[in-house]
Amino acid sequence: MIEQRNEIPHLILAAKVRKGLSWSTIADALGQSKEWATAACLGQMALDANQARAAVELFELPEDAAAWLQTVPHKAADNLASDPLVYRLYEVIHVYGGAMKELIHEEFGDGIMSAIDFDMDIQRQDDPKGDRVRIVMTGKFLPYKRY
Amino acid sequence: MIEQRNEIPHLILAAKVRKGLSWSTIADALGQSKEWATAACLGQMALDANQARAAVELFELPEDAAAWLQTVPHKAADNLASDPLVYRLYEVIHVYGGAMKELIHEEFGDGIMSAIDFDMDIQRQDDPKGDRVRIVMTGKFLPYKRY
Amino acid sequence: MIEQRNEIPHLILAAKVRKGLSWSTIADALGQSKEWATAACLGQMALDANQARAAVELFELPEDAAAWLQTVPHKAADNLASDPLVYRLYEVIHVYGGAMKELIHEEFGDGIMSAIDFDMDIQRQDDPKGDRVRIVMTGKFLPYKRY
Amino acid sequence: MIEQRNEIPHLILAAKVRKGLSWSTIADALGQSKEWATAACLGQMALDANQARAAVELFELPEDAAAWLQTVPHKAADNLASDPLVYRLYEVIHVYGGAMKELIHEEFGDGIMSAIDFDMDIQRQDDPKGDRVRIVMTGKFLPYKRY
Amino acid sequence: MIEQRNEIPHLILAAKVRKGLSWSTIADALGQSKEWATAACLGQMALDANQARAAVELFELPEDAAAWLQTVPHKAADNLASDPLVYRLYEVIHVYGGAMKELIHEEFGDGIMSAIDFDMDIQRQDDPKGDRVRIVMTGKFLPYKRY
Amino acid sequence: MIEQRNEIPHLILAAKVRKGLSWSTIADALGQSKEWATAACLGQMALDANQARAAVELFELPEDAAAWLQTVPHKAADNLASDPLVYRLYEVIHVYGGAMKELIHEEFGDGIMSAIDFDMDIQRQDDPKGDRVRIVMTGKFLPYKRY
Amino acid sequence: MIEQRNEIPHLILAAKVRKGLSWSTIADALGQSKEWATAACLGQMALDANQARAAVELFELPEDAAAWLQTVPHKAADNLASDPLVYRLYEVIHVYGGAMKELIHEEFGDGIMSAIDFDMDIQRQDDPKGDRVRIVMTGKFLPYKRY
Amino acid sequence: MIEQRNEIPHLILAAKVRKGLSWSTIADALGQSKEWATAACLGQMALDANQARAAVELFELPEDAAAWLQTVPHKAADNLASDPLVYRLYEVIHVYGGAMKELIHEEFGDGIMSAIDFDMDIQRQDDPKGDRVRIVMTGKFLPYKRY
Amino acid sequence: MIEQRNEIPHLILAAKVRKGLSWSTIADALGQSKEWATAACLGQMALDANQARAAVELFELPEDAAAWLQTVPHKAADNLASDPLVYRLYEVIHVYGGAMKELIHEEFGDGIMSAIDFDMDIQRQDDPKGDRVRIVMTGKFLPYKRY
Amino acid sequence: MIEQRNEIPHLILAAKVRKGLSWSTIADALGQSKEWATAACLGQMALDANQARAAVELFELPEDAAAWLQTVPHKAADNLASDPLVYRLYEVIHVYGGAMKELIHEEFGDGIMSAIDFDMDIQRQDDPKGDRVRIVMTGKFLPYKRY
Repeated sequence: MIEQRNEIPHLILAAKVRKGLSWSTIADALGQSKEWATAACLGQMALDANQARAAVELFELPEDAAAWLQTVPHKAADNLASDPLVYRLYEVIHVYGGAMKELIHEEFGDGIMSAIDFDMDIQRQDDPKGDRVRIVMTGKFLPYKRY
Repeated sequence: MIEQRNEIPHLILAAKVRKGLSWSTIADALGQSKEWATAACLGQMALDANQARAAVELFELPEDAAAWLQTVPHKAADNLASDPLVYRLYEVIHVYGGAMKELIHEEFGDGIMSAIDFDMDIQRQDDPKGDRVRIVMTGKFLPYKRY
Repeated sequence: MIEQRNEIPHLILAAKVRKGLSWSTIADALGQSKEWATAACLGQMALDANQARAAVELFELPEDAAAWLQTVPHKAADNLASDPLVYRLYEVIHVYGGAMKELIHEEFGDGIMSAIDFDMDIQRQDDPKGDRVRIVMTGKFLPYKRY
Repeated sequence: MIEQRNEIPHLILAAKVRKGLSWSTIADALGQSKEWATAACLGQMALDANQARAAVELFELPEDAAAWLQTVPHKAADNLASDPLVYRLYEVIHVYGGAMKELIHEEFGDGIMSAIDFDMDIQRQDDPKGDRVRIVMTGKFLPYKRY
Repeated sequence: MIEQRNEIPHLILAAKVRKGLSWSTIADALGQSKEWATAACLGQMALDANQARAAVELFELPEDAAAWLQTVPHKAADNLASDPLVYRLYEVIHVYGGAMKELIHEEFGDGIMSAIDFDMDIQRQDDPKGDRVRIVMTGKFLPYKRY
Repeated sequence: MIEQRNEIPHLILAAKVRKGLSWSTIADALGQSKEWATAACLGQMALDANQARAAVELFELPEDAAAWLQTVPHKAADNLASDPLVYRLYEVIHVYGGAMKELIHEEFGDGIMSAIDFDMDIQRQDDPKGDRVRIVMTGKFLPYKRY
Repeated sequence: MIEQRNEIPHLILAAKVRKGLSWSTIADALGQSKEWATAACLGQMALDANQARAAVELFELPEDAAAWLQTVPHKAADNLASDPLVYRLYEVIHVYGGAMKELIHEEFGDGIMSAIDFDMDIQRQDDPKGDRVRIVMTGKFLPYKRY
Repeated sequence: MIEQRNEIPHLILAAKVRKGLSWSTIADALGQSKEWATAACLGQMALDANQARAAVELFELPEDAAAWLQTVPHKAADNLASDPLVYRLYEVIHVYGGAMKELIHEEFGDGIMSAIDFDMDIQRQDDPKGDRVRIVMTGKFLPYKRY
Repeated sequence: MIEQRNEIPHLILAAKVRKGLSWSTIADALGQSKEWATAACLGQMALDANQARAAVELFELPEDAAAWLQTVPHKAADNLASDPLVYRLYEVIHVYGGAMKELIHEEFGDGIMSAIDFDMDIQRQDDPKGDRVRIVMTGKFLPYKRY
Repeated sequence: MIEQRNEIPHLILAAKVRKGLSWSTIADALGQSKEWATAACLGQMALDANQARAAVELFELPEDAAAWLQTVPHKAADNLASDPLVYRLYEVIHVYGGAMKELIHEEFGDGIMSAIDFDMDIQRQDDPKGDRVRIVMTGKFLPYKRY
């Protein structure tokens, strides 16, 4: 039984060596380009149901691998921060962090927005130009104590 | 004469302190939201010709600043992370980043929330238990291309 | 038998994949928002006794998981320093370390406060505006030897 | 003319050396504790208008320093950690941080000790075996919001 | 059964100690210089079929080691970035990244090339002076939103 | 008088802004592609004597710049990585680097794509769904020497 | 059987959760303050023989844990350099390294003290003000070769 | 006029070179060992009033240097580690640090060798096989406080 | 059976705790000083055949430990770069890298020495003042492509 | 007047460019090999009195440079590693460092190749398939002292 998604690329590479498969053959079995298919087999892309089924057969993976292969992986190796979705969130602070600091201080004075007395709501926002992710955060403002 | 683009934010901040300007006033002069305008004044966005002209007048910048302000800056300040206000924003992602990834993928599938086709709004939210900072972000969802 | 708290998120994710659960379903079972519930299942929040019981049933966890889920986790991934409680302690030194250095030197001259001949006492300090954590540290002052 | 806020701490320290001022004298002039006042003079806290005026006089700063001192600084000095006195403070957290986390959670549940609604008092504690530095910190306990 | 290629150097070193082999003896068995052969046994070079067969016999490796030894290893220790092939890709950006930024901004204005709505094609390009790797990338240009 | 080679890119960029030059115009003046010429102006390539002379005239550089521009620079800018445009390029390698390694080795065997005997072409690719950036790179394949 | 000292804190925490012990109860069993006792259970302090015996009973540890608990642990988490005893050795070089360099060069000229042709002797030096650790190092001086 | 304390070591070194002073001469002028005096001149120790006066005369420093030299410096230079002479000292701890920890704990129990109540003596040790650098360090042993 | 050399220090430490041995006793058994013997047992030095035999008996190690203990260990903890032999190679580049760059560019112009089309030969060079390691490297010069 | 030793390499490089000197000419003037002389001019070696005098004349340095050039420098430049030419040298050690360690230990036993009693020779090696850079390094083998 597979316990974590990142066990699967090792199983796939071992099957590829054992069976002498080429990436082109694998790409054909998945019905995608060799570039996308290789990235997917290395754990960087999510498969759809048919592709997951094909991969289980081709690489003789355990049955439960099919469900795991359809989940979205943590991409870009080994830490949360380099996953593309998570990185975009950090980048927002890289680019806007100075502005957020200025605007919160202008409105509230010296202090911080709490990350503890804090809530967040994530929704889909329909948009004819492409739906948007909408994230609303609220955190209590805490002024620096003077003493 | 300005020798590098990154001299300009210092000149702008010094003018802001000297003249006692608020970011809202500055945003009005540039005809953008206060979030975009503040980021731009801190060197994260390129101005158009009219905005550059307005900035030179408002902040009494050297004449050649107008051309520099229309160039695309090297973005992403790198030394903000240990400031307590900014750190709280990063900590939100440290603590909630995995959950945000799960929830966005569950709703949208594999892809990201754009940090480019992105906007943000920061407001005070009155609260009898202590006012809150309210941050609303929306970013276009971009699905991973399959090919 | 569970040996460390951080085994549990892997068990939960594996159950979620195996049983095809959505985060909304999980959030309903825990009686919290999907944002909080997802963060909790990923090991970032402590559950109460009822929620822990519900989680053990929903995810078919080992019995002893219920007690572990009620302990407060080490948050924010993988090192002690990024846990929010511990980070606040470091931040106190980031912000006040220079002042502590100046004040100790002004009182005692060149030297250090020992971290070895050292004791600490942590107490709750009642306060009508919200109870406070009170930490008292004493360490022997050691003057730099001259020779 | 002052071009960036972080020039001011150097001017203050130079004036302190030149005029032989103690931090207690400075704290009296600002009407705050010596801990807060020292941190503020080192660029970690924002002054109010009266304090800024008093600082300009006491340290014979340029006139425009008064406006700068009222802006919120970028906090958190980053190069202190290898100084022996400051390192001992970090080491206390390296060695005791896990214990502090356990004990605060046992008493208060999930949450943090605020580093913002926070105060500190540093005193000499006479001791026949060698005087001790005594540091008392109190910070409001903030429970993690559930929602 | 061997699950990952990096298990093999440990097996080889253990056999070398157990059987008291010298690197010169090993190099003779592989038909290469001692420098190349040692690097190969430590997992830095790919063997050909005859060499892989010889290594399996000499070190009494599991049968499937022969196929693994003919795959190209991840070189230079422990992370993807220091593998020579992958490093060259990063170096292209170290050297040309500034130019790519300038040229894309000159053509498109402020924004980015998407790494999500992105595809890539890798081909051999015949060349009498030595064949070339040809990589074609296309990514949608995303302009920074103004608001 | 120029004291270090890395002063020159700042002088060139300032002249480019002041005179409103495009990179294509500059490339024509140097008689190279816009990709090579931009990299050279940013301090990544050495010019020959004629090009150095042309650059001094075009950018109105001090006379001694001509000799400096013919020296080989210290290459590889190091602070670009957090700029959003440049980060996307790195992310492509984070996500696809493993796949690129597999595919190049499958086609060519053990070796690398040269980043020295290398060229690059960047173009706008019209697309009704939004124009794309198209980057074509070719680099000579270099097989690992066996000896 | 316990193979490394750092297995013990995991066993203690698991027993604490399983048996529902509080840190105060544990501290009473060890006869120390809750702060010291918690740090010791987390692997930061050495127990004496009676305390080790009490801990084995309270937490139902393997018999050989009693001897391990009386050894001095590697403190401060995970690397040798942050252990307090070892850090002091590094700090001596942080503080005195420049002086050591100056004095060795003044006496010997350009070169180094060998760390290979090197020996060390560590002794207790009796001292009525508190015994001292005495470390004598000698290393051959190696002059830089000129050629 | 001196603006920051860390300007003084540069002035001292320049005077030492210009006047051809040896560290022994300097140590005599300050009335301390050559080890302490050199560290102090490099900005690691605070001088007393007489020593500060002597240093100003010996090195022909600006008058206000005398007050600065009596302030406690920020210690611990941070960029020495890659110098070959200094690196060997660090390497001794890399290689022997674990052994030093074991041996000091075996002799003294849990605690550290102080780096504050510490002295050091560096001498040439004649040796027919090549002279040796002899470094003798003594530091007070400080036992961990139990409470 | 021992699979890697770094398993042995754990076995030795466990035997030392179990049997209550002191480092002096161990040093006597190995016939060396306690400093050298401790470092050797912690995996920093190679034993000779008699010492290896004595260690196997004293610590009741597996039989194959004797051969492993006579191999030269990777020293200085955990990464290749801090091993003293390997570090010297890096240091050569730290000290001479700038000179190598200047001299190769002076002879060949802009480009690099290939690390792929590369070979190396390592030999003993007899020398009455002490034998020398002789390393000869040749790599093809690759000029930067202009286009 | 020269204030710090590290100003001198910039002055030397500027003179070399201005006067069109080659490193061989410079080496002749200093009476050393081109490798040693280049390293010395880049601030890695101390000159003797005659060489310092020759350097002042050749490069038309300020008079006080002669005394500075005879002081032992802080060695080991730290920002070279991402330059493509220098990176290839590091990569050789990344890829071959383990093999070099094995082979030197097999030939010489436990110890290192000195980087101090060390010389290097860099030559062009003609080759019809493309000229090669040939680097010969010899360093004295230093066995680890046993005691």
